[in-house]
Amino acid sequence: MRVRNRKGATELLEANPQYVVLNPADAKGKWQELFGNDHPIHIEVGSGKGAFITGMAKANPNINYIGIDIQKSVLSYALDKVLATDVPNIKLLWVDGSDLTNYFADGEIERLYLNFSDPWPKKRHEKRRLTYKSFLDTFKQILPEKGEVHFKTDNRGLFEYSLVSFSQYGMKLKGVWLDLHASDFEGNVLTEYEQKFSSKGQVIYRVEAVFQ
Amino acid sequence: MRVRNRKGATELLEANPQYVVLNPADAKGKWQELFGNDHPIHIEVGSGKGAFITGMAKANPNINYIGIDIQKSVLSYALDKVLATDVPNIKLLWVDGSDLTNYFADGEIERLYLNFSDPWPKKRHEKRRLTYKSFLDTFKQILPEKGEVHFKTDNRGLFEYSLVSFSQYGMKLKGVWLDLHASDFEGNVLTEYEQKFSSKGQVIYRVEAVFQ
Repeated sequence: MRVRNRKGATELLEANPQYVVLNPADAKGKWQELFGNDHPIHIEVGSGKGAFITGMAKANPNINYIGIDIQKSVLSYALDKVLATDVPNIKLLWVDGSDLTNYFADGEIERLYLNFSDPWPKKRHEKRRLTYKSFLDTFKQILPEKGEVHFKTDNRGLFEYSLVSFSQYGMKLKGVWLDLHASDFEGNVLTEYEQKFSSKGQVIYRVEAVFQ
Repeated sequence: MRVRNRKGATELLEANPQYVVLNPADAKGKWQELFGNDHPIHIEVGSGKGAFITGMAKANPNINYIGIDIQKSVLSYALDKVLATDVPNIKLLWVDGSDLTNYFADGEIERLYLNFSDPWPKKRHEKRRLTYKSFLDTFKQILPEKGEVHFKTDNRGLFEYSLVSFSQYGMKLKGVWLDLHASDFEGNVLTEYEQKFSSKGQVIYRVEAVFQ
């Protein structure tokens, strides 16, 4: 998700250390301590404006959520939602998805969400897709054995690519939804993007893939 | 594909032994001999009225094709097409997809096609779906190492099920198409069913899955 630069985004992030972890490398291996409980930790890589992560945190108080985005302005909008939601089980990080092993110990994260990731449709940009094998290497390291990636998108090309990429990497598919909103899937929390595009009749794809 | 009983179907099949192999168990391990060459053999399980298998045989003279259907009347319509096409690289078998190891030696078949298989949507009929694990056991046995199953359907539920079934079985996905007719896939040969339903705007799904 691209947004315009927001004036005061940095100040807003810095003013809310209870939600925004500005030095996440210091928290590596100690995230449960930081949350003050021993609940499992789920992260969303590319959390955008935060509708998903705040919705999930509200619905699942016994899970700790960490939203990650590379864009400071985007993260500041997510912070607005977190402040409005006012739940204790969310943290936000302003970092890059390729650096995750700097911030999380091996197996520290129970589950990883990818929602409407940038499709990078050009073949020469394949390595930038969050379901490319180098990202899967990173994800596998911070997840436990049989750790799961839950991914949804409306982009057909990216979804086709990702199913093959997961499979070729050796992950197993646990569930596939080719029209999520027409299915009997329960508990779907919509992202901002999903709200906007599914109301226009766009099909939403979803997959749960498991590392082996 | 279900069709009404066709009067004279048996006689038609029996009158064309160059195309219809009535005692396929006798040919087990000797199919290339029967075709009179050493070309690879591809089979279609559930070949319906034969548009796919005849189209493929015409387009690929260096591959031997075997079409299999459990219904005699359906097979007789496929025979009509085979007779009209008049190519030497097709045989038809009137047998059940679960009995394939009776007719083919281990690794004798290079590739297996499933097209618009019966979806059996009820959970209690799962075992009848051609992508259920017991069928995959059979397919794996008659295919070589890294043997491929190519499957297409317009049925969303069956396709979702099959992706998961292939993956859970340990097969790897080589390619996935979530709107085959809108893709740049080349050389697609349409089945009768596909001609009819894709013209109504139905999405066609396709996958290539590889045994490991």
